[in-house]
Amino acid sequence: MNPTRLKKLIRPLVQKLHAYVPGEQPKIPGLIKLNTNENPYPPSPHVLKTVQAAVDGRLRLYPNPTAERLRAKLARLHRCTPDHLIIGNGSDELLALAVRTFTEPSPKSRVQYFTPSYSLYPVLADTHGAAKNPVPLNPDFSMPGLPGLKRGQVWDFNAALTLVTTPNAPGGRGYPTAELDKFCRAQQGVVVLDEAYVDFADENALKLALKHPHVLVSRTFSKAYSLCFQRVGYFVGHPDLIAALHKMRDSYNVNGLGQIAAEATLDDLKYYRANFRQILTTREQLSRQLTKLGFRVLPSQTNFILTRPPLFPAEQWLQKLRDRKILVRWFGAKEVRDYLRITIGTPAEAEALVRAVSAIAAEGG
Amino acid sequence: MNPTRLKKLIRPLVQKLHAYVPGEQPKIPGLIKLNTNENPYPPSPHVLKTVQAAVDGRLRLYPNPTAERLRAKLARLHRCTPDHLIIGNGSDELLALAVRTFTEPSPKSRVQYFTPSYSLYPVLADTHGAAKNPVPLNPDFSMPGLPGLKRGQVWDFNAALTLVTTPNAPGGRGYPTAELDKFCRAQQGVVVLDEAYVDFADENALKLALKHPHVLVSRTFSKAYSLCFQRVGYFVGHPDLIAALHKMRDSYNVNGLGQIAAEATLDDLKYYRANFRQILTTREQLSRQLTKLGFRVLPSQTNFILTRPPLFPAEQWLQKLRDRKILVRWFGAKEVRDYLRITIGTPAEAEALVRAVSAIAAEGG
Repeated sequence: MNPTRLKKLIRPLVQKLHAYVPGEQPKIPGLIKLNTNENPYPPSPHVLKTVQAAVDGRLRLYPNPTAERLRAKLARLHRCTPDHLIIGNGSDELLALAVRTFTEPSPKSRVQYFTPSYSLYPVLADTHGAAKNPVPLNPDFSMPGLPGLKRGQVWDFNAALTLVTTPNAPGGRGYPTAELDKFCRAQQGVVVLDEAYVDFADENALKLALKHPHVLVSRTFSKAYSLCFQRVGYFVGHPDLIAALHKMRDSYNVNGLGQIAAEATLDDLKYYRANFRQILTTREQLSRQLTKLGFRVLPSQTNFILTRPPLFPAEQWLQKLRDRKILVRWFGAKEVRDYLRITIGTPAEAEALVRAVSAIAAEGG
Repeated sequence: MNPTRLKKLIRPLVQKLHAYVPGEQPKIPGLIKLNTNENPYPPSPHVLKTVQAAVDGRLRLYPNPTAERLRAKLARLHRCTPDHLIIGNGSDELLALAVRTFTEPSPKSRVQYFTPSYSLYPVLADTHGAAKNPVPLNPDFSMPGLPGLKRGQVWDFNAALTLVTTPNAPGGRGYPTAELDKFCRAQQGVVVLDEAYVDFADENALKLALKHPHVLVSRTFSKAYSLCFQRVGYFVGHPDLIAALHKMRDSYNVNGLGQIAAEATLDDLKYYRANFRQILTTREQLSRQLTKLGFRVLPSQTNFILTRPPLFPAEQWLQKLRDRKILVRWFGAKEVRDYLRITIGTPAEAEALVRAVSAIAAEGG
């Protein structure tokens, strides 16, 4: 088959697509990995024991197609019904499903999101063939147009779907629930509040999903609950929107051991809450130490900090830290290219980072 | 929000959609489950041990985003390169991705498939907004239009995507590779040969995916390899088509323990091949016994049989067997409503089925 005919087999939309680039998962012995916002602490002993005990002949069977037991447990936790819940193969799957369920594959249908924010959002719009409305955040990463949201400014109040990461990445800033409530009321389309980092924040907006029929809240077991490996996220919202998402998903979208791990996690929340407190303590200590070393550290409501380093461009810091086996994240987008995003690790990892930063600064000075 | 406004948030396509209905996964103690073509034998002891040993602190980390090690092992098995391979969250995910990658969301772009065949295919076309071309199989479930495929008959040689289950479900018939080769050569669009059941067949068509750039072969670890619970399937094909599919998938689409389970499976193929032989033996025995009891059993190249029961309508047999805690599958589509689809279980399960069938026949006689 000649290359022209081969190319014609693939949709033009796909040919033009720039796929989302996930953070590196390198296998370097001794590497300190602070680049993809994973929790530095393992799942609880109870979770590990429960999953181990489940690895038996049942692997031959299909998992529960709607993650029934997990939804029942989450419904009790969030004081809603299982019909308010859909479980996904990570929250990424549900974000993609939301784009396909609530927006048309047409330049007339818009996906709206902050910029900078989760860099997957524009990819999801492009993948589907919907239009994008990236709304620039204020220079301090606060929400633009507030107070007094007005039409004809930056926001499209008729966007079919608006994706809001709160607390936001990579900025780290949390948006007050009262502000989000006002924002949601102004929107005519569906609003997803992506709370991937909310367990590290002072407040959450879950009640908005139970109050406004057009608002969905997205949560994940990946980061706060140390289950990235097993791909479990969920949406909370009005049963009609949730039912529409269920229609669009694969029948057995959530693997069985992931369901079991997430269920066991909900039985052991005390363990995780202690981890959150430790991560916040480390976050505040590290922020103070980096500030002393000349870094500008933005206030964070997440398990990472966004920080502007001194002396060299941020991209050079990325490399210099990598040379010392510390991996952080750098994004090329213009609003954030002067910053590094650093995941909060253990106290020992934070100390190693501070030592490396001091040594690099000393060399460069 | 009033119901009209709420409804407007959901795409008309989604509102109209009839979701795929997976086979039941009931929790009835002592149930003999012969309805969803799961393997009756557990994963090998080596696989279970390897997965158990992997349940540790690593669950906090993201899995390898491209299932690199698994692709390397599969490449050795199939004598191709890792670039010929994409791993999915079950092969269902990849089938859905194929529809989104190779067909337009437009009534001008067609998804073509046999009928009856895997009832997911029309749902995938509807979910995407592509047109459907269901091609009726001959009454004996053989491929129509062969020999001497002709335009203007049942086949659309320009369909953007053709999905062929081979061996087919629910008919159980396998299509000879030479016939499939001729069929693929006639097609101008992408052809996916869905070999979910191929390990129970006399031949496979993998070489067609390595020979024809527009042909992809779909495989799964679910059925033959007893890993339904963990959701791992894959496509083999031309690196350009595979690269297009990679662009469209979620970044971390395959859970980590699923990757590890599939890798360990490939180290232990001897165990599985012994299971396949046992299942074929049970299939032939059960077919003979049911034939003696007045059932018409179609020849099968899979781990299930399609069979037309005597005395009562098939739907009544479904219920009567269920009353005796044996679950089989019945489909309402007109070509197969007179049949039951029965998964091949262990010899003991097959004996229990034969006893139940004899008892039901005695009552009804």
